[in-house]
Amino acid sequence: MTSSPTAAAIVVGNEILSGKVSEANVYELARVLRSSGVLLSRVVTILDDVETIAREVKALRAGFDYVITSGGVGVTHDDVTIAAVARAFGVPVVRDPELEALIRRHYGERVHENHLALANVPEGARKLTAEGFAWPLVAIENVYVLPGIPEIFQRKLGILRAHLEKAGGPFLSRAAYTRMDEAVLKPLLDEVVAENPAVEVGSYPRWNDPKYETKVTFDGKDREAVESALEHFLKLLPPGEPQWIE
Amino acid sequence: MTSSPTAAAIVVGNEILSGKVSEANVYELARVLRSSGVLLSRVVTILDDVETIAREVKALRAGFDYVITSGGVGVTHDDVTIAAVARAFGVPVVRDPELEALIRRHYGERVHENHLALANVPEGARKLTAEGFAWPLVAIENVYVLPGIPEIFQRKLGILRAHLEKAGGPFLSRAAYTRMDEAVLKPLLDEVVAENPAVEVGSYPRWNDPKYETKVTFDGKDREAVESALEHFLKLLPPGEPQWIE
Repeated sequence: MTSSPTAAAIVVGNEILSGKVSEANVYELARVLRSSGVLLSRVVTILDDVETIAREVKALRAGFDYVITSGGVGVTHDDVTIAAVARAFGVPVVRDPELEALIRRHYGERVHENHLALANVPEGARKLTAEGFAWPLVAIENVYVLPGIPEIFQRKLGILRAHLEKAGGPFLSRAAYTRMDEAVLKPLLDEVVAENPAVEVGSYPRWNDPKYETKVTFDGKDREAVESALEHFLKLLPPGEPQWIE
Repeated sequence: MTSSPTAAAIVVGNEILSGKVSEANVYELARVLRSSGVLLSRVVTILDDVETIAREVKALRAGFDYVITSGGVGVTHDDVTIAAVARAFGVPVVRDPELEALIRRHYGERVHENHLALANVPEGARKLTAEGFAWPLVAIENVYVLPGIPEIFQRKLGILRAHLEKAGGPFLSRAAYTRMDEAVLKPLLDEVVAENPAVEVGSYPRWNDPKYETKVTFDGKDREAVESALEHFLKLLPPGEPQWIE
Protein backbone atom coordinates (compact mmCIF):
# COMPACT_ATOMS: atom_id res chain seq x y z
CA MET A 1 0.00 0.00 0.00
CA THR A 2 2.98 2.32 0.36
CA SER A 3 3.15 2.55 -3.40
CA SER A 4 -0.33 4.04 -3.70
CA PRO A 5 -0.55 7.66 -4.77
CA THR A 6 -1.42 9.83 -1.75
CA ALA A 7 -3.78 12.74 -1.24
CA ALA A 8 -4.46 15.40 1.36
CA ALA A 9 -7.48 17.66 1.58
CA ILE A 10 -7.85 21.19 2.90
CA VAL A 11 -11.30 22.22 4.06
CA VAL A 12 -11.63 26.00 4.25
CA GLY A 13 -14.49 26.68 6.58
CA ASN A 14 -15.21 29.19 9.31
CA GLU A 15 -18.79 27.91 9.16
CA ILE A 16 -17.62 24.38 10.02
CA LEU A 17 -15.19 25.35 12.77
CA SER A 18 -17.81 27.58 14.37
CA GLY A 19 -20.37 24.77 14.40
CA LYS A 20 -22.83 26.40 11.98
CA VAL A 21 -22.88 23.49 9.56
CA SER A 22 -21.68 19.92 9.50
CA GLU A 23 -18.94 19.18 6.94
CA ALA A 24 -20.28 17.11 4.06
CA ASN A 25 -17.68 17.02 1.27
CA VAL A 26 -14.89 14.94 2.78
CA TYR A 27 -17.00 11.78 2.82
CA GLU A 28 -17.72 12.12 -0.92
CA LEU A 29 -14.10 12.97 -1.69
CA ALA A 30 -12.82 10.03 0.37
CA ARG A 31 -15.04 7.62 -1.57
CA VAL A 32 -13.90 8.92 -4.96
CA LEU A 33 -10.22 8.77 -3.97
CA ARG A 34 -10.64 5.29 -2.50
CA SER A 35 -12.26 3.93 -5.64
CA SER A 36 -9.50 5.56 -7.69
CA GLY A 37 -6.77 3.84 -5.67
CA VAL A 38 -5.55 7.06 -4.05
CA LEU A 39 -4.75 6.97 -0.32
CA LEU A 40 -6.30 9.96 1.44
CA SER A 41 -4.07 10.34 4.50
CA ARG A 42 -4.75 13.79 5.86
CA VAL A 43 -7.58 16.29 6.00
CA VAL A 44 -7.01 19.71 7.51
CA THR A 45 -9.91 22.03 8.31
CA ILE A 46 -8.85 25.66 8.72
CA LEU A 47 -10.25 29.18 8.95
CA ASP A 48 -10.94 31.42 5.93
CA ASP A 49 -7.60 33.17 6.20
CA VAL A 50 -5.27 33.78 3.22
CA GLU A 51 -2.03 33.24 5.13
CA THR A 52 -3.21 30.05 6.85
CA ILE A 53 -4.53 28.53 3.64
CA ALA A 54 -1.41 29.49 1.66
CA ARG A 55 0.88 27.94 4.29
CA GLU A 56 -1.17 24.74 4.33
CA VAL A 57 -1.25 24.43 0.52
CA LYS A 58 2.51 24.97 0.35
CA ALA A 59 3.23 22.32 2.99
CA LEU A 60 0.83 19.69 1.69
CA ARG A 61 1.59 19.98 -2.01
CA ALA A 62 5.19 19.09 -1.22
CA GLY A 63 4.19 15.98 0.73
CA PHE A 64 1.29 14.48 -1.23
CA ASP A 65 0.60 13.53 -4.82
CA TYR A 66 -2.77 15.29 -4.82
CA VAL A 67 -4.04 18.18 -2.74
CA ILE A 68 -7.76 18.95 -2.91
CA THR A 69 -9.23 22.12 -1.43
CA SER A 70 -12.90 22.52 -0.52
CA GLY A 71 -14.47 25.92 0.11
CA GLY A 72 -13.60 29.59 0.08
CA VAL A 73 -14.42 29.96 -3.62
CA GLY A 74 -16.88 32.71 -4.49
CA VAL A 75 -17.27 36.43 -4.95
CA THR A 76 -17.34 37.92 -1.44
CA HIS A 77 -14.74 39.09 1.07
CA ASP A 78 -14.56 35.69 2.80
CA ASP A 79 -13.72 33.78 -0.40
CA VAL A 80 -9.94 33.78 -0.33
CA THR A 81 -8.88 30.32 -1.49
CA ILE A 82 -7.86 31.34 -5.03
CA ALA A 83 -5.70 34.17 -3.65
CA ALA A 84 -4.19 31.80 -1.09
CA VAL A 85 -3.36 29.10 -3.65
CA ALA A 86 -1.77 31.76 -5.88
CA ARG A 87 0.29 32.94 -2.92
CA ALA A 88 1.38 29.38 -2.15
CA PHE A 89 2.72 29.11 -5.71
CA GLY A 90 4.15 32.64 -5.74
CA VAL A 91 2.06 33.66 -8.76
CA PRO A 92 -0.49 36.44 -9.25
CA VAL A 93 -4.24 35.96 -9.57
CA VAL A 94 -5.34 36.53 -13.16
CA ARG A 95 -8.72 36.62 -14.87
CA ASP A 96 -9.26 33.68 -17.19
CA PRO A 97 -10.98 34.78 -20.44
CA GLU A 98 -12.54 31.39 -21.09
CA LEU A 99 -14.09 31.24 -17.61
CA GLU A 100 -15.23 34.84 -17.97
CA ALA A 101 -17.03 33.94 -21.21
CA LEU A 102 -18.71 30.99 -19.48
CA ILE A 103 -19.90 33.22 -16.64
CA ARG A 104 -21.22 35.87 -19.04
CA ARG A 105 -23.08 33.21 -20.99
CA HIS A 106 -24.50 31.65 -17.83
CA TYR A 107 -25.83 34.88 -16.28
CA GLY A 108 -26.79 36.59 -19.55
CA GLU A 109 -28.30 40.01 -18.89
CA ARG A 110 -28.21 39.47 -15.13
CA VAL A 111 -24.40 39.35 -15.10
CA HIS A 112 -22.80 41.63 -12.52
CA GLU A 113 -19.21 42.81 -12.57
CA ASN A 114 -18.72 41.00 -9.24
CA HIS A 115 -19.72 37.67 -10.76
CA LEU A 116 -16.55 37.79 -12.83
CA ALA A 117 -14.48 37.17 -9.70
CA LEU A 118 -15.42 33.54 -10.34
CA ALA A 119 -13.14 33.71 -13.40
CA ASN A 120 -10.10 34.51 -11.25
CA VAL A 121 -7.43 31.80 -11.15
CA PRO A 122 -3.79 31.52 -10.06
CA GLU A 123 -1.59 32.31 -13.06
CA GLY A 124 -0.59 29.07 -14.75
CA ALA A 125 -3.70 27.17 -13.62
CA ARG A 126 -5.17 24.41 -15.78
CA LYS A 127 -8.87 24.01 -16.46
CA LEU A 128 -9.83 20.35 -16.34
CA THR A 129 -12.94 19.18 -18.11
CA ALA A 130 -14.77 15.91 -18.55
CA GLU A 131 -17.70 14.79 -20.63
CA GLY A 132 -21.00 15.90 -19.18
CA PHE A 133 -19.56 18.73 -17.09
CA ALA A 134 -20.15 22.31 -18.26
CA TRP A 135 -17.84 24.09 -15.84
CA PRO A 136 -14.16 23.17 -15.65
CA LEU A 137 -12.24 22.29 -12.50
CA VAL A 138 -9.38 24.66 -11.71
CA ALA A 139 -6.05 23.02 -10.88
CA ILE A 140 -2.47 24.19 -10.58
CA GLU A 141 0.24 21.56 -10.55
CA ASN A 142 -1.03 18.98 -8.01
CA VAL A 143 -3.56 21.28 -6.29
CA TYR A 144 -7.26 21.01 -7.20
CA VAL A 145 -9.55 23.85 -6.13
CA LEU A 146 -13.16 22.88 -5.42
CA PRO A 147 -15.95 25.09 -4.04
CA GLY A 148 -17.58 24.23 -0.73
CA ILE A 149 -21.26 24.19 -1.70
CA PRO A 150 -21.94 20.44 -1.65
CA GLU A 151 -23.93 20.33 -4.92
CA ILE A 152 -21.15 22.11 -6.83
CA PHE A 153 -18.40 20.22 -5.01
CA GLN A 154 -20.03 17.01 -6.26
CA ARG A 155 -19.94 18.15 -9.87
CA LYS A 156 -16.29 19.14 -9.71
CA LEU A 157 -15.59 15.82 -8.03
CA GLY A 158 -16.95 14.13 -11.15
CA ILE A 159 -14.23 15.84 -13.19
CA LEU A 160 -11.56 14.94 -10.61
CA ARG A 161 -12.69 11.31 -10.72
CA ALA A 162 -12.37 11.24 -14.50
CA HIS A 163 -8.81 12.58 -14.23
CA LEU A 164 -7.82 10.15 -11.49
CA GLU A 165 -9.07 7.06 -13.26
CA LYS A 166 -5.60 5.86 -14.08
CA ALA A 167 -4.05 6.67 -10.71
CA GLY A 168 -3.81 3.04 -9.66
CA GLY A 169 -5.89 -0.02 -8.88
CA PRO A 170 -8.80 0.69 -6.54
CA PHE A 171 -8.81 -0.28 -2.89
CA LEU A 172 -10.98 -3.28 -2.09
CA SER A 173 -12.89 -3.57 1.14
CA ARG A 174 -14.69 -6.47 2.83
CA ALA A 175 -16.39 -6.51 6.21
CA ALA A 176 -17.72 -9.02 8.72
CA TYR A 177 -20.34 -8.09 11.32
CA THR A 178 -20.37 -10.00 14.58
CA ARG A 179 -22.18 -9.94 17.92
CA MET A 180 -18.89 -10.54 19.68
CA ASP A 181 -17.27 -8.05 22.02
CA GLU A 182 -14.05 -6.42 20.79
CA ALA A 183 -12.20 -7.65 23.87
CA VAL A 184 -13.05 -11.24 22.98
CA LEU A 185 -12.21 -10.68 19.32
CA LYS A 186 -8.82 -9.14 20.06
CA PRO A 187 -6.68 -12.32 19.99
CA LEU A 188 -8.36 -13.42 16.74
CA LEU A 189 -7.74 -10.01 15.19
CA ASP A 190 -4.14 -9.99 16.35
CA GLU A 191 -3.58 -13.30 14.56
CA VAL A 192 -5.22 -12.08 11.34
CA VAL A 193 -3.22 -8.82 11.46
CA ALA A 194 0.06 -10.67 12.02
CA GLU A 195 -0.47 -13.15 9.20
CA ASN A 196 -1.94 -10.77 6.60
CA PRO A 197 0.52 -7.89 6.37
CA ALA A 198 -0.79 -6.68 2.99
CA VAL A 199 -4.25 -6.09 4.43
CA GLU A 200 -5.40 -3.31 6.72
CA VAL A 201 -7.69 -4.71 9.40
CA GLY A 202 -10.09 -2.36 11.21
CA SER A 203 -12.33 -3.10 14.18
CA TYR A 204 -15.32 -0.86 14.91
CA PRO A 205 -17.56 -1.44 17.92
CA ARG A 206 -21.19 -0.42 17.61
CA TRP A 207 -23.17 1.19 20.39
CA ASN A 208 -26.47 -0.47 21.38
CA ASP A 209 -27.29 -2.07 18.03
CA PRO A 210 -29.22 -5.34 18.37
CA LYS A 211 -27.96 -6.53 14.95
CA TYR A 212 -24.24 -6.56 15.66
CA GLU A 213 -21.61 -5.41 18.13
CA THR A 214 -18.38 -5.25 16.13
CA LYS A 215 -17.69 -4.60 12.45
CA VAL A 216 -14.35 -5.92 11.25
CA THR A 217 -13.00 -4.54 7.96
CA PHE A 218 -10.34 -5.85 5.55
CA ASP A 219 -8.87 -3.36 3.08
CA GLY A 220 -6.16 -3.56 0.47
CA LYS A 221 -5.39 -3.47 -3.23
CA ASP A 222 -4.63 -7.17 -3.66
CA ARG A 223 -7.99 -8.91 -4.03
CA GLU A 224 -6.63 -12.34 -3.17
CA ALA A 225 -4.94 -11.01 -0.03
CA VAL A 226 -8.11 -9.22 1.12
CA GLU A 227 -10.29 -12.28 0.55
CA SER A 228 -7.78 -14.52 2.25
CA ALA A 229 -7.62 -12.26 5.34
CA LEU A 230 -11.42 -12.31 5.55
CA GLU A 231 -11.46 -16.12 5.19
CA HIS A 232 -8.78 -16.42 7.85
CA PHE A 233 -10.89 -14.34 10.25
CA LEU A 234 -14.08 -16.26 9.46
CA LYS A 235 -12.36 -19.56 10.24
CA LEU A 236 -11.36 -18.29 13.69
CA LEU A 237 -14.92 -17.33 14.64
CA PRO A 238 -17.11 -19.61 16.77
CA PRO A 239 -20.23 -21.26 15.27
CA GLY A 240 -23.08 -18.83 14.61
CA GLU A 241 -20.72 -15.96 13.72
CA PRO A 242 -20.46 -13.73 11.81
CA GLN A 243 -24.00 -12.36 11.55
CA TRP A 244 -23.26 -11.35 7.95
CA ILE A 245 -20.46 -10.28 5.63
CA GLU A 246 -20.23 -7.57 2.98
CA MET B 1 -11.47 37.89 19.19
CA THR B 2 -7.71 37.34 19.31
CA SER B 3 -7.96 37.11 23.08
CA SER B 4 -10.27 34.07 22.97
CA PRO B 5 -8.81 30.78 24.14
CA THR B 6 -8.08 28.58 21.13
CA ALA B 7 -8.60 24.89 20.39
CA ALA B 8 -7.51 22.34 17.81
CA ALA B 9 -8.98 18.88 17.27
CA ILE B 10 -7.37 15.69 16.05
CA VAL B 11 -9.68 13.13 14.46
CA VAL B 12 -8.07 9.69 14.36
CA GLY B 13 -9.86 7.77 11.69
CA ASN B 14 -8.87 5.33 8.96
CA GLU B 15 -12.61 4.70 8.57
CA ILE B 16 -13.22 8.38 7.77
CA LEU B 17 -10.27 8.84 5.41
CA SER B 18 -11.21 5.66 3.53
CA GLY B 19 -14.80 6.84 3.05
CA LYS B 20 -16.43 4.13 5.17
CA VAL B 21 -18.24 6.56 7.44
CA SER B 22 -18.97 10.24 7.55
CA GLU B 23 -17.33 12.13 10.41
CA ALA B 24 -19.91 13.17 13.02
CA ASN B 25 -18.11 14.43 16.13
CA VAL B 26 -16.52 17.67 14.95
CA TYR B 27 -19.88 19.38 14.50
CA GLU B 28 -20.84 18.59 18.11
CA LEU B 29 -17.43 19.59 19.40
CA ALA B 30 -17.48 22.87 17.44
CA ARG B 31 -20.84 23.80 18.96
CA VAL B 32 -19.70 23.10 22.51
CA LEU B 33 -16.47 25.08 22.05
CA ARG B 34 -18.34 27.96 20.42
CA SER B 35 -20.84 28.23 23.24
CA SER B 36 -17.96 28.09 25.71
CA GLY B 37 -16.18 31.00 24.03
CA VAL B 38 -13.30 28.86 22.72
CA LEU B 39 -12.15 29.48 19.13
CA LEU B 40 -11.76 26.17 17.28
CA SER B 41 -9.25 27.06 14.58
CA ARG B 42 -7.94 23.76 13.27
CA VAL B 43 -9.12 20.18 12.84
CA VAL B 44 -6.73 17.54 11.54
CA THR B 45 -7.98 14.13 10.44
CA ILE B 46 -5.23 11.52 10.32
CA LEU B 47 -4.67 7.78 10.01
CA ASP B 48 -4.58 5.38 12.99
CA ASP B 49 -0.80 5.52 13.25
CA VAL B 50 1.07 6.02 16.54
CA GLU B 51 3.88 8.14 15.09
CA THR B 52 1.53 10.40 13.11
CA ILE B 53 -0.80 10.96 16.06
CA ALA B 54 2.07 11.59 18.48
CA ARG B 55 3.65 14.16 16.14
CA GLU B 56 0.33 15.94 15.71
CA VAL B 57 -0.43 16.02 19.46
CA LYS B 58 3.03 17.40 20.14
CA ALA B 59 2.72 20.14 17.53
CA LEU B 60 -0.82 21.21 18.39
CA ARG B 61 -0.55 21.20 22.16
CA ALA B 62 2.22 23.77 21.85
CA GLY B 63 0.12 26.05 19.66
CA PHE B 64 -3.37 25.88 21.14
CA ASP B 65 -4.94 26.24 24.57
CA TYR B 66 -6.98 23.05 24.17
CA VAL B 67 -6.36 19.97 22.04
CA ILE B 68 -9.20 17.46 21.73
CA THR B 69 -8.70 14.05 20.16
CA SER B 70 -11.53 11.91 18.77
CA GLY B 71 -11.13 8.21 18.04
CA GLY B 72 -8.58 5.45 18.34
CA VAL B 73 -9.63 4.59 21.88
CA GLY B 74 -10.51 0.95 22.51
CA VAL B 75 -9.07 -2.50 23.06
CA THR B 76 -7.92 -3.70 19.63
CA HIS B 77 -4.76 -3.34 17.54
CA ASP B 78 -6.04 -0.23 15.73
CA ASP B 79 -6.70 1.73 18.96
CA VAL B 80 -3.43 3.59 19.41
CA THR B 81 -4.38 7.07 20.58
CA ILE B 82 -3.50 6.56 24.27
CA ALA B 83 -0.06 5.21 23.30
CA ALA B 84 0.43 8.11 20.88
CA VAL B 85 -0.53 10.77 23.44
CA ALA B 86 1.82 9.15 25.97
CA ARG B 87 4.59 9.25 23.37
CA ALA B 88 3.88 12.92 22.63
CA PHE B 89 4.42 13.68 26.32
CA GLY B 90 7.37 11.32 26.69
CA VAL B 91 5.64 9.28 29.42
CA PRO B 92 4.76 5.57 29.66
CA VAL B 93 1.25 4.14 29.43
CA VAL B 94 0.07 2.97 32.85
CA ARG B 95 -3.02 1.18 34.08
CA ASP B 96 -5.26 3.38 36.20
CA PRO B 97 -6.65 1.45 39.21
CA GLU B 98 -9.76 3.61 39.51
CA LEU B 99 -10.67 3.11 35.84
CA GLU B 100 -9.94 -0.60 36.18
CA ALA B 101 -12.37 -0.80 39.10
CA LEU B 102 -15.03 1.02 37.04
CA ILE B 103 -14.58 -1.43 34.16
CA ARG B 104 -14.76 -4.46 36.45
CA ARG B 105 -17.92 -3.12 38.02
CA HIS B 106 -19.46 -2.35 34.63
CA TYR B 107 -18.80 -5.75 33.03
CA GLY B 108 -19.24 -7.82 36.19
CA GLU B 109 -18.79 -11.51 35.47
CA ARG B 110 -18.43 -10.87 31.74
CA VAL B 111 -15.21 -8.89 32.24
CA HIS B 112 -12.37 -10.02 29.97
CA GLU B 113 -8.69 -9.27 30.56
CA ASN B 114 -8.70 -7.34 27.27
CA HIS B 115 -11.40 -4.98 28.51
CA LEU B 116 -8.90 -3.63 31.01
CA ALA B 117 -6.98 -1.95 28.18
CA LEU B 118 -9.66 0.73 28.53
CA ALA B 119 -8.06 1.58 31.90
CA ASN B 120 -4.73 2.47 30.22
CA VAL B 121 -3.76 6.13 30.40
CA PRO B 122 -0.63 8.21 29.82
CA GLU B 123 1.24 8.49 33.14
CA GLY B 124 0.26 11.75 34.82
CA ALA B 125 -3.18 11.93 33.19
CA ARG B 126 -6.08 13.51 35.02
CA LYS B 127 -9.57 12.03 35.18
CA LEU B 128 -12.17 14.75 34.80
CA THR B 129 -15.67 14.18 36.06
CA ALA B 130 -18.90 16.11 36.12
CA GLU B 131 -22.27 15.58 37.72
CA GLY B 132 -24.35 13.03 35.87
CA PHE B 133 -21.42 11.35 34.10
CA ALA B 134 -20.36 7.91 35.32
CA TRP B 135 -17.13 7.57 33.31
CA PRO B 136 -14.40 10.18 33.59
CA LEU B 137 -12.76 12.01 30.70
CA VAL B 138 -9.01 11.39 30.41
CA ALA B 139 -6.85 14.48 29.98
CA ILE B 140 -3.16 15.23 30.24
CA GLU B 141 -2.11 18.86 30.48
CA ASN B 142 -4.12 20.57 27.71
CA VAL B 143 -4.92 17.39 25.73
CA TYR B 144 -8.37 15.76 26.12
CA VAL B 145 -8.78 12.20 24.84
CA LEU B 146 -12.28 11.30 23.59
CA PRO B 147 -13.38 8.06 21.92
CA GLY B 148 -14.74 8.12 18.37
CA ILE B 149 -18.07 6.33 18.83
CA PRO B 150 -20.49 9.26 18.56
CA GLU B 151 -22.70 8.25 21.50
CA ILE B 152 -19.71 8.00 23.84
CA PHE B 153 -18.02 11.06 22.36
CA GLN B 154 -21.16 13.02 23.25
CA ARG B 155 -21.05 11.92 26.88
CA LYS B 156 -17.40 12.86 27.28
CA LEU B 157 -18.19 16.17 25.58
CA GLY B 158 -20.62 16.85 28.41
CA ILE B 159 -17.72 16.62 30.87
CA LEU B 160 -15.52 18.81 28.67
CA ARG B 161 -18.29 21.41 28.48
CA ALA B 162 -18.57 21.49 32.28
CA HIS B 163 -14.82 22.08 32.53
CA LEU B 164 -14.77 24.77 29.86
CA GLU B 165 -17.62 26.78 31.33
CA LYS B 166 -15.37 29.53 32.58
CA ALA B 167 -13.15 29.68 29.49
CA GLY B 168 -14.60 33.00 28.35
CA GLY B 169 -17.78 34.68 27.18
CA PRO B 170 -19.60 32.71 24.47
CA PHE B 171 -19.56 33.70 20.83
CA LEU B 172 -22.80 35.28 19.64
CA SER B 173 -24.13 34.72 16.16
CA ARG B 174 -26.85 36.44 14.14
CA ALA B 175 -27.86 35.76 10.55
CA ALA B 176 -29.88 37.39 7.79
CA TYR B 177 -31.33 35.37 4.89
CA THR B 178 -31.84 37.15 1.58
CA ARG B 179 -32.91 36.33 -1.95
CA MET B 180 -30.12 38.52 -3.26
CA ASP B 181 -27.18 37.23 -5.27
CA GLU B 182 -23.77 37.34 -3.54
CA ALA B 183 -22.36 39.42 -6.38
CA VAL B 184 -24.97 42.11 -5.75
CA LEU B 185 -24.50 41.90 -1.98
CA LYS B 186 -20.72 42.23 -2.20
CA PRO B 187 -20.43 46.06 -1.95
CA LEU B 188 -22.88 46.07 0.99
CA LEU B 189 -20.89 43.36 2.74
CA ASP B 190 -17.61 45.15 2.09
CA GLU B 191 -19.02 48.24 3.82
CA VAL B 192 -20.27 46.25 6.81
CA VAL B 193 -16.95 44.40 7.11
CA ALA B 194 -14.95 47.65 6.92
CA GLU B 195 -17.02 49.43 9.55
CA ASN B 196 -17.48 46.56 12.01
CA PRO B 197 -13.97 45.26 12.68
CA ALA B 198 -14.97 43.43 15.88
CA VAL B 199 -17.46 41.26 14.02
CA GLU B 200 -16.78 38.36 11.70
CA VAL B 201 -19.06 38.55 8.67
CA GLY B 202 -19.71 35.40 6.63
CA SER B 203 -21.60 35.05 3.36
CA TYR B 204 -22.98 31.66 2.31
CA PRO B 205 -24.76 31.16 -1.00
CA ARG B 206 -27.42 28.49 -1.15
CA TRP B 207 -27.97 26.23 -4.13
CA ASN B 208 -31.48 26.11 -5.62
CA ASP B 209 -33.42 26.97 -2.49
CA PRO B 210 -36.65 28.88 -3.20
CA LYS B 211 -36.61 30.41 0.31
CA TYR B 212 -33.31 32.29 0.12
CA GLU B 213 -30.15 32.67 -1.92
CA THR B 214 -27.56 34.03 0.52
CA LYS B 215 -27.18 33.67 4.28
CA VAL B 216 -25.11 36.41 5.88
CA THR B 217 -23.76 35.76 9.37
CA PHE B 218 -22.44 38.12 12.07
CA ASP B 219 -20.29 36.57 14.80
CA GLY B 220 -18.43 37.98 17.75
CA LYS B 221 -18.25 38.14 21.53
CA ASP B 222 -19.48 41.73 21.93
CA ARG B 223 -23.27 41.58 21.76
CA GLU B 224 -23.64 45.27 20.98
CA ALA B 225 -21.10 45.07 18.15
CA VAL B 226 -22.79 41.99 16.64
CA GLU B 227 -26.25 43.57 16.80
CA SER B 228 -24.94 46.81 15.37
CA ALA B 229 -23.27 45.04 12.42
CA LEU B 230 -26.52 43.22 11.68
CA GLU B 231 -28.48 46.51 11.90
CA HIS B 232 -25.95 48.17 9.62
CA PHE B 233 -26.41 45.42 7.03
CA LEU B 234 -30.21 45.49 7.29
CA LYS B 235 -30.24 49.24 6.62
CA LEU B 236 -28.28 48.75 3.40
CA LEU B 237 -30.74 46.20 2.02
CA PRO B 238 -33.43 47.19 -0.49
CA PRO B 239 -37.13 47.05 0.51
CA GLY B 240 -38.48 43.51 0.84
CA GLU B 241 -35.19 42.16 2.16
CA PRO B 242 -34.15 40.25 4.16
CA GLN B 243 -36.55 37.32 4.00
CA TRP B 244 -35.94 36.69 7.70
CA ILE B 245 -33.31 37.04 10.41
CA GLU B 246 -32.16 34.71 13.16
